[in-house]
Amino acid sequence: MKNLEKEIEFSILLDEMKRILRRTKHIGHDIYENDAEHSFHISAMAMVFHSYCKEETDLGHTLKMLLIHDLVEIYAGDTFCYDVKGNGDKAERESEAADKIFGMLPVEKGEFFHSLWREFEENSTPESKFANAMDRMQPLLNNLNNNGGTWNNESVTYSAIVKRMIPLKEFSEDIWNYLDEKIKETFVLMGKEIV
Amino acid sequence: MKNLEKEIEFSILLDEMKRILRRTKHIGHDIYENDAEHSFHISAMAMVFHSYCKEETDLGHTLKMLLIHDLVEIYAGDTFCYDVKGNGDKAERESEAADKIFGMLPVEKGEFFHSLWREFEENSTPESKFANAMDRMQPLLNNLNNNGGTWNNESVTYSAIVKRMIPLKEFSEDIWNYLDEKIKETFVLMGKEIV
Repeated sequence: MKNLEKEIEFSILLDEMKRILRRTKHIGHDIYENDAEHSFHISAMAMVFHSYCKEETDLGHTLKMLLIHDLVEIYAGDTFCYDVKGNGDKAERESEAADKIFGMLPVEKGEFFHSLWREFEENSTPESKFANAMDRMQPLLNNLNNNGGTWNNESVTYSAIVKRMIPLKEFSEDIWNYLDEKIKETFVLMGKEIV
Repeated sequence: MKNLEKEIEFSILLDEMKRILRRTKHIGHDIYENDAEHSFHISAMAMVFHSYCKEETDLGHTLKMLLIHDLVEIYAGDTFCYDVKGNGDKAERESEAADKIFGMLPVEKGEFFHSLWREFEENSTPESKFANAMDRMQPLLNNLNNNGGTWNNESVTYSAIVKRMIPLKEFSEDIWNYLDEKIKETFVLMGKEIV
């Protein structure tokens, strides 16, 4: 197959992202968010919160990572972040999916996409730390504005959320402190203990 | 209101993009695409087709433009590209919407977003030409893979599509020639004349 055909095939496959549902819902609506919407939302948020980066961070590179970090879910599916069992084999499932999906592209492009995905997962460069912070902050905002949203699930404790939000806290204490207050207020409204 | 509060307010507003419907449907599904999905799709496609740029083109800058170019529709709504009447006052409606939505952000950020939106609309830099080409190519792919999709509307002629696709043709003759053949094949399948 010619390169152009591969690239068009890949572009068509991207459409699948619009039907991979996440656990988070749209703000104020009983509609599950999908991966395409989530990827857009976190990317646009990165444009807003770039100014909070403490170290030199390339926004363009961050956007590239955010746009492709969930593509593996086309083959691996979405795993609920508070699902201990599902997360057990997540890394393996996603690694196989990455080989499969990025392998569809002409070699050089596939490797570029693959390296971005790995960088996001490794979470060690300024750009990937910023990207991971946005990936955590967006569902947090949706849950906060949906009376707790997925946090109403019995198994989700306040301390599990705090743990999950470490990348956001490390990214910006200001943002975290502001939102942490809101999380506590929401827990009170949900009638859940802050433990 | 403090800057952080404005930025969070804006991030919440971004969620609206998930419910602004376009005319194009998901590939192989009877589901209208929304603005968030479309913005994700064209941005990820830009990462794939960046190698086709004839002049030096900053991919990161292109992504920033693609991610925010449709935000004005939160206040101005989507206008069907082949709707002559709706397009009559589109520029004015969108310009007012741009003032309103980008005005929500702290001044400097708002101006940055506004300048990206204007650059996309003016379509004169290498990045905005590339961005506009992607914005045209994605619904084209969806229609091609949906037995013509919105082209089944009586008012949409082959020459109207060709005219609409000028930014794509100018971006890459190779991509255009390949897809133009597919458009013609699809017109034959739809039983529509190629005029």
